[in-house]
Amino acid sequence: MSETISPLAPAHFPELPAISGVTCRSARAQYKQWDRCDLTYVELAQGTSVAGVLTQSKCPSPEVEWCRNALANGTARALVVNAGNSNAFTGSKGKEAVQLILSLASEHLGCKEEEIFVSSTGVIGVPLPKDKAESGLTAVFGAEPCSWEQAAATIMTTDTFPKMATASAVIGGKTVHLNGIIKGSGMIAPDMATMLGYIFTDVNVDAGFLQEMLSAATQKSFNCITVDSDTSTSDTVLAFATGQNDARALNSFDDPGADAFQAALNDLCLQLAQLVVRDGEGATKFIEVAVTGATSDDSAKRIALSIANSPLVKTAIAGEDANWGRVVMAVGKAGEPADRDKLSIGFGGVTVARDGLVVPDYDEEPVAAHLRGSEIDISVDIGLGSGKATVWTCDLTHGYISINADYRS
Amino acid sequence: MSETISPLAPAHFPELPAISGVTCRSARAQYKQWDRCDLTYVELAQGTSVAGVLTQSKCPSPEVEWCRNALANGTARALVVNAGNSNAFTGSKGKEAVQLILSLASEHLGCKEEEIFVSSTGVIGVPLPKDKAESGLTAVFGAEPCSWEQAAATIMTTDTFPKMATASAVIGGKTVHLNGIIKGSGMIAPDMATMLGYIFTDVNVDAGFLQEMLSAATQKSFNCITVDSDTSTSDTVLAFATGQNDARALNSFDDPGADAFQAALNDLCLQLAQLVVRDGEGATKFIEVAVTGATSDDSAKRIALSIANSPLVKTAIAGEDANWGRVVMAVGKAGEPADRDKLSIGFGGVTVARDGLVVPDYDEEPVAAHLRGSEIDISVDIGLGSGKATVWTCDLTHGYISINADYRS
Repeated sequence: MSETISPLAPAHFPELPAISGVTCRSARAQYKQWDRCDLTYVELAQGTSVAGVLTQSKCPSPEVEWCRNALANGTARALVVNAGNSNAFTGSKGKEAVQLILSLASEHLGCKEEEIFVSSTGVIGVPLPKDKAESGLTAVFGAEPCSWEQAAATIMTTDTFPKMATASAVIGGKTVHLNGIIKGSGMIAPDMATMLGYIFTDVNVDAGFLQEMLSAATQKSFNCITVDSDTSTSDTVLAFATGQNDARALNSFDDPGADAFQAALNDLCLQLAQLVVRDGEGATKFIEVAVTGATSDDSAKRIALSIANSPLVKTAIAGEDANWGRVVMAVGKAGEPADRDKLSIGFGGVTVARDGLVVPDYDEEPVAAHLRGSEIDISVDIGLGSGKATVWTCDLTHGYISINADYRS
Repeated sequence: MSETISPLAPAHFPELPAISGVTCRSARAQYKQWDRCDLTYVELAQGTSVAGVLTQSKCPSPEVEWCRNALANGTARALVVNAGNSNAFTGSKGKEAVQLILSLASEHLGCKEEEIFVSSTGVIGVPLPKDKAESGLTAVFGAEPCSWEQAAATIMTTDTFPKMATASAVIGGKTVHLNGIIKGSGMIAPDMATMLGYIFTDVNVDAGFLQEMLSAATQKSFNCITVDSDTSTSDTVLAFATGQNDARALNSFDDPGADAFQAALNDLCLQLAQLVVRDGEGATKFIEVAVTGATSDDSAKRIALSIANSPLVKTAIAGEDANWGRVVMAVGKAGEPADRDKLSIGFGGVTVARDGLVVPDYDEEPVAAHLRGSEIDISVDIGLGSGKATVWTCDLTHGYISINADYRS
């Protein structure tokens, strides 16, 4: 948690409605020497279904491995999130800490261990201290319920602001709500998965179908952002559906309202994903990269991520330089079909290069003005097909170097 | 060309011997407003064979396309290198400039255009000015021969020191020489190719066999370095063999001396590649990443490059932090077979993590002392097989941001 709030933080936090069947609590486990809550405990009503996407890292934390296995069960009664220590790469000691949390929480609720979901985030390589986890859990079980904002603040590490979003959908005339909280700022290049994000809804939805919808939403949101091309060992997104709303149950896209729910879930995931980019380490510009005309949507996404991950493109934007030559470089290195002489590139809606050549005498003033702002649009047309994709990133600044050359255990 | 020389520059430049059949000249084409030579012309004896490796970028410069086609011819009479303008992404105007250079040089020498090799390096997107190329060539044709150091200095752009290396081999009792010059500092992540590098030897070697040996040497040298994960549109390495030495000709590995020549070529390419890393933009530490125990050599190389390209690993080294947790992260994201609980990691020869756990009470002092130095060794054992690879990179510092948020046309 930093003293300085990202210049890209939203001006206002949204008001999150209560979600029936969800109760948040927070406490101080003191995983680090800091004066703040760092343990979040979310209790879920009986009958809550759960879905999740988890990091593709080959070196995941024991929490990630636990969640991956527990998801097969399809139901959840509680979520425990530890901030300040990721517990990744900690061998048998790390697993023992997870086991202790599972035992204590399942005993407290009288449920199966497989209904408890656990995440940890922070420094890699230090086993989560069991004594702190135990005293933290004892405190949090007896704590008063807390606000969504407090829960979002408690899961933060190097984040500079709490991140939350809300959406709603109408199912058969009944309004259902979805709330989400998320943390993440560095080590952000989700791949089929993401940072730590949690979504809660009161809808009654089958776990398998919830998983299908969450996976679809992830492809267009969490998997379309990057801060620094580095993929975390602990990436986790979990969606919990309590079924406490009296709207009709959803079991497949044949059910009326399922499409509306998917749209609301997509919207919520995109809001959460973009909040992470807005808190990118050292970020001063929020960058949207839209690629069209590729040979397929997958190809467009790989090209867009090649641009969004290029340190030379990201430093050019930090320097407010419409350096389309570096965009050409990033298209060229993506390894995807491209024809230099059909490529067009624009900044802020102004085409600066077309058909493989700079546009003669393009108006530089609106481009320069666009780059001085904090919301940057880069558009690239490959000119070969109809594949398209949009991804989001931030600029690469001295702030990123300062944060990461100093941050440590 | 910077005012400040990289702190990783070699203390002394090597003495390069003359190579029979090779004459370097330089002149001022004034491709940029600077007070230095920026056009290099290397004349090669009749009968010189040539081989090359070129960027895999899908958006290459017309120079790269020309060289790729001309290599099929197998012989060379001259090399022309323009510094200050890459001529990439310049459409038909860029091609016209290359054509003019080919016409003037082939007429001057009375040779085929296919025997002229051309490279350009510098800003992307501005057509190489034909008038400057023509007056530069006229000047350089009449210039006195220059030194290898002058030729190496003339091909520089953001480089902070001229880069050259020499090697020799004995073929049937006769000593043959290989000299190389190279430039590159940013946009360095060669992939089956590299930055601009030129190798000259007096050996008599068949062009096809020279290509085979150069490709093999490239895999273990230029393709094992990265500064910033960005691959240039103009990457080129060319090797010229004049055949002016009286050692026996080389046509295959069955010829005595061919193994010795390959070893000398490997040595030369590695020297040149490492010089580029030592001039990495903003670099203060030279980093060797050695991966062992992977399931194959290719897998080891992908893991090693994942570590070497990780901004979080590179900023940690800049901060003199033995942050092995970030190394775990980079292994995990590489997508290659890895087992967290078999992984070992060392810095400067001291194992800090073994079998998926930090080594209890490892001696931090020698590790800290190693990281305060400028030559950093990271070793990673995957524990699964016998695949191994070594790659080289530099740290990521405020200097990189300053250079790239400001540098422009």
